[in-house]
Amino acid sequence: MEGAEHRRDPCSVAQTIEIVGERWSLLVLREAFFGVRRFDQFQRNLGIARNILAARLQALVGHGILERRLYQERPERYEYRLTQKGLDLYPALVSLMRWGDEYVNAEPGPPVVLVHKACGHDAAPQLTCSHCGEPIGPHDIRPEVGPGALAESA
Amino acid sequence: MEGAEHRRDPCSVAQTIEIVGERWSLLVLREAFFGVRRFDQFQRNLGIARNILAARLQALVGHGILERRLYQERPERYEYRLTQKGLDLYPALVSLMRWGDEYVNAEPGPPVVLVHKACGHDAAPQLTCSHCGEPIGPHDIRPEVGPGALAESA
Repeated sequence: MEGAEHRRDPCSVAQTIEIVGERWSLLVLREAFFGVRRFDQFQRNLGIARNILAARLQALVGHGILERRLYQERPERYEYRLTQKGLDLYPALVSLMRWGDEYVNAEPGPPVVLVHKACGHDAAPQLTCSHCGEPIGPHDIRPEVGPGALAESA
Repeated sequence: MEGAEHRRDPCSVAQTIEIVGERWSLLVLREAFFGVRRFDQFQRNLGIARNILAARLQALVGHGILERRLYQERPERYEYRLTQKGLDLYPALVSLMRWGDEYVNAEPGPPVVLVHKACGHDAAPQLTCSHCGEPIGPHDIRPEVGPGALAESA
């Protein structure tokens, strides 16, 4: 592969990990994708200390991944909902889950199956080329220098 | 969505994060996907302390994600190569990168573009249903209890 000698930061992987790589943050996001919105529900599902949960939620709101919304006035109660930026983390979460299904939970099988509503089958989501639709693995791809790297060195 | 009241561990996301969620581990994997195999090259590209790098590499080898191979006998030199288990982390890495491309490096654009060798276009990899081939987002999916969860509660 090309470019093995070159240090690649700023890198979108590194920067994404800075934002969502913390373990509790990813688990909060997992819960959000399962439909959880309220503090107590996150807290109960994750068994996480309240101060840590509050900090993780605040950080995710600060990054624009979750949105804090008032849903009750007396007493004031807030819920946390995924923004579009948060929803767009779905492929990453699903890919992490799929890998765990294969290598960590191979027996007795995946705890959760993702059914594709439109076709009714187990989606078994895979990564494909958005141009030709073929499945993509590491050997099918040639990384090339993108506009961000060019701008940086200009 | 279903099941929001239910605590979901053992969860493939949580367990995968335990294994590869550490920041340096993910960056080591990123380098491995770019073709890096040797200790000094990982060290130089990442600007990581040697003892931390050694620990991360050892952990990834321990999990069967990287394989340590002798490539020179005098003096003994080893390289680190992705196993199939490691190669299968590609969709997760690519998905994290794509999100960063969109939300962190939107300007001046992605530092790296992934060209699909077979069709010659920017792959812009996306998650699709392996049954019908349609792109998949969080609203297209219905999570259902899988065999792992059923076995657990049996």
